[in-house]
Amino acid sequence: MKEASLALALSTLSFMMAVIWGGPLIRLLRHFKIGKLIRIEGPGTHLPKMGTPTMGGVMIILPVTLITVLLNAASFMGVDVLGRSVLVPLIVMLIYGLLGMIDDWEGIRGRRRGLGMRARTKFIIQSIFAFGVAIVLKYILQVPEMFWPSTAEPFSLGIWYIPLAALIIVSSSNAVNFTDGLDGLAGLISATAFAAYGGIAILQGQTFLARFCFSLVGAIFGFLWFNVHPAELFMGDTGALSLGATLAVIALMTGQWLLLPIVFIVPVSEVLSVILQIGYFRITKGKRLFKMAPLHHHFELGGWSETQVVQRFWLVSLLFAILGIALALV
Amino acid sequence: MKEASLALALSTLSFMMAVIWGGPLIRLLRHFKIGKLIRIEGPGTHLPKMGTPTMGGVMIILPVTLITVLLNAASFMGVDVLGRSVLVPLIVMLIYGLLGMIDDWEGIRGRRRGLGMRARTKFIIQSIFAFGVAIVLKYILQVPEMFWPSTAEPFSLGIWYIPLAALIIVSSSNAVNFTDGLDGLAGLISATAFAAYGGIAILQGQTFLARFCFSLVGAIFGFLWFNVHPAELFMGDTGALSLGATLAVIALMTGQWLLLPIVFIVPVSEVLSVILQIGYFRITKGKRLFKMAPLHHHFELGGWSETQVVQRFWLVSLLFAILGIALALV
Repeated sequence: MKEASLALALSTLSFMMAVIWGGPLIRLLRHFKIGKLIRIEGPGTHLPKMGTPTMGGVMIILPVTLITVLLNAASFMGVDVLGRSVLVPLIVMLIYGLLGMIDDWEGIRGRRRGLGMRARTKFIIQSIFAFGVAIVLKYILQVPEMFWPSTAEPFSLGIWYIPLAALIIVSSSNAVNFTDGLDGLAGLISATAFAAYGGIAILQGQTFLARFCFSLVGAIFGFLWFNVHPAELFMGDTGALSLGATLAVIALMTGQWLLLPIVFIVPVSEVLSVILQIGYFRITKGKRLFKMAPLHHHFELGGWSETQVVQRFWLVSLLFAILGIALALV
Repeated sequence: MKEASLALALSTLSFMMAVIWGGPLIRLLRHFKIGKLIRIEGPGTHLPKMGTPTMGGVMIILPVTLITVLLNAASFMGVDVLGRSVLVPLIVMLIYGLLGMIDDWEGIRGRRRGLGMRARTKFIIQSIFAFGVAIVLKYILQVPEMFWPSTAEPFSLGIWYIPLAALIIVSSSNAVNFTDGLDGLAGLISATAFAAYGGIAILQGQTFLARFCFSLVGAIFGFLWFNVHPAELFMGDTGALSLGATLAVIALMTGQWLLLPIVFIVPVSEVLSVILQIGYFRITKGKRLFKMAPLHHHFELGGWSETQVVQRFWLVSLLFAILGIALALV
């Protein structure tokens, strides 16, 4: 109980770190003109956001890295295997954060301004890392491969675990990226999901993982302080790719990744809306299923205000996160 | 674990009931012209809200009452004392809801239009009920009177428990009322607090109370669906007085009411800001401590957008709710 209590309290620490560093970071980003270029295809109402500083993901990644390293330095060097396991999501967060940062930079300064890295290049790099992580999870950490609700023993998936885990990591990473289009949306949705998996980690006695989750929750809240409408800062791909991949790895480490489509209902729906939109467009040779994909633009064009879309999507997420924990408890 | 899981899942049920009944309720309120009259003293930006339907609290109270009665009908009639204990917060919710409804009605149709019931009358009625509830809690339910963090046994406060419990109920009820001034604010803050105490109730094995909390969380989320900025509906005193009093009773039933100033940090700060503002004004003979009280207007006048105030206050609430649970676990 005391360990769970410490894990929860870490969120306050990382929140304060993120909020304190937030002001200087925004000034730094402004100084170096790291501002988002808005593509013209989005709803016209988003044009005033042109030039808002991006790469805000570093505001989340830095405090979490610092807290996790300081808190676990002893177990990283020692023999405590459980403590060292948290290195995996930490490294994933850093690598995908770096990839996102390169992507953000390309979008601002590179040859493909306003677009970022080529989708194919990005996908290949994401996949290579994801396969590596899947192998580490299965053979080094030997995580429980899959829990089915209401059964106590995990199932083994054999060699199929590797491509499946890699697919989950890559999809989740891109799903958050699609979700990241309205002020506060991606941050609120991810923080909720990390809190839900933090709760599941506590119930499983994986204290180290729970601490990691709740420091993420706090840091994301700190970022959201500046990201609420009207946003002073965007997380960028630095944040989106990194948070998505990290959440997937955490879900895999709990073995409860079957709950991911529930806990992460909004990003999953956003990806599906894009796939369905493209598929429908090709099959019908030009018709659209949604007014615009990803999904949040569809509702915006349907007359909801930006705040209404964000908060309603979040209410649904919170309910599904509660449902996810309920299913983990069955 | 299965019982906790059912309690959590109830939030989805009450959410759906509230959302489904929401549309017809708003049309009904519009038909009977139950719209809020905005007092001129508030920031000028709030004038467009004039005429928005109020009394939205019934959207929360009705589904929760229905679910609680259906779920516990057997234990209400039978000998299961634990099950019957939930009648206390249920009746408090209904009584304070009714009081709030009369107040809302007075504000729209009565002689004191735009103001509602006389503050003194309202306070006296609230206090009488609160004393009654305090006596029931101590002598009939025999709840644990006070838990101190990190001690397992509850303390007894003797006869002092009665006025103290009554004070907590009345203060909490009015605190939510002060908080209720921006779209979504009071609802988000209360839902967070009910979720935190629902979690504490689960940890204490008070399943009936946990179920009641999570049906409230879901119903408030349903109300918030319509209440997010720009709001189509306000909770009114029907919601505010009722939610505040009910939360206080739930906190008293867990014996963990010492955590209330943490879990309910925003309403407590709002009340304090009003008291300090009035006190400072009288002592200095005319100076103001805040630009405007309650606190949320102070930040609004300081340049934050309505959404920024609401979401930042909520982020702080969520962190403090997590901290509250952490303290309950110590």
